[in-house]
Amino acid sequence: MSRLAEEKRRVMEAILEDAIIGYLDPGSLGLLETLNRPARVVTLSSCIGRVTLVVGRRPWSRREAYIAFKTHDRITVDDIVRVARRGFRNLWLKATGPILHVKTDSMECAVHMLSQARPYGFKHSGIISVGGEGIVVEFMSAVDVTTPLVIDGSPVATGLEKLVDEVNDAVHGARQLLHEFARQLSSHPGPCG
Amino acid sequence: MSRLAEEKRRVMEAILEDAIIGYLDPGSLGLLETLNRPARVVTLSSCIGRVTLVVGRRPWSRREAYIAFKTHDRITVDDIVRVARRGFRNLWLKATGPILHVKTDSMECAVHMLSQARPYGFKHSGIISVGGEGIVVEFMSAVDVTTPLVIDGSPVATGLEKLVDEVNDAVHGARQLLHEFARQLSSHPGPCG
Repeated sequence: MSRLAEEKRRVMEAILEDAIIGYLDPGSLGLLETLNRPARVVTLSSCIGRVTLVVGRRPWSRREAYIAFKTHDRITVDDIVRVARRGFRNLWLKATGPILHVKTDSMECAVHMLSQARPYGFKHSGIISVGGEGIVVEFMSAVDVTTPLVIDGSPVATGLEKLVDEVNDAVHGARQLLHEFARQLSSHPGPCG
Repeated sequence: MSRLAEEKRRVMEAILEDAIIGYLDPGSLGLLETLNRPARVVTLSSCIGRVTLVVGRRPWSRREAYIAFKTHDRITVDDIVRVARRGFRNLWLKATGPILHVKTDSMECAVHMLSQARPYGFKHSGIISVGGEGIVVEFMSAVDVTTPLVIDGSPVATGLEKLVDEVNDAVHGARQLLHEFARQLSSHPGPCG
């Protein structure tokens, strides 16, 4: 068995275990199985899209910010109000579409996946590492809302209902595209098959 | 002369021409010269970071949105008010750090650049295409604010002064890091030299 096949066997076991424990997000098991169907592809980490409330001035900086609330489901105005009441000096809402990391041992497969992914909204995708361990490809959805709720102690957002509807719809839509991409890749694996 | 060296000669000529006409953003000439110093690297497109006002429900979708205002300099509250007065049903402010595309003919150089770039805030960078023409690497700053100003006809942002200060500072900071990355790469070209 090749090194990748061996790794894939371990990953699939871990995924099934997580599913049994109830650790996987609902709907993820089928998705991960579909993504791992092509022989030369193994999933590493994946996020099916989420909405977070981030404390700190710079939500894109890991050192200067932390997550106070996270959901892979729909966020509500109540969720926001509950966190905002804790009186953070800087608070942001961040909604992101899916981000997926997969590994392959074939550069042809990596390039094939990139070209397959683009029509499904994964605009900023690329090979993020190349080494003896394999080639890691990141697929990142273009869907992204990064909006301040409180800056320097002052609330700066009104109309939370509308904001919440927008971001929930956007994340949900991007997730549908991820499922479609997974089905497309598994039915047209090309050099990944 | 190799194909890449030939392309690089053309690119450098075009850059100098743009600089003479005044078409280049101020400060870009030195940056592009530094980035093109390693022998195996040639810049394709680059954006040193910018703030835009985007009309449409989905600012990340090219089909459903368009840019009504753009600046590589600092945006002001007046800029926003002027555009908002035009009465768009959906309006977003989007601030992004630098995005850079470079080409190389060496996979070792591509991997070297990726590892060099990460500490300078280029979190979502990767090889976006691999082909006979060369390897294209995208460097994308993590700095990103995508915040709704008007949703469905209702204003949803208050405290525009604070928002404007935040995004101007963020874009400026990310641009400084781009300059530092360019200097780092040109002084430690490794397999790109």
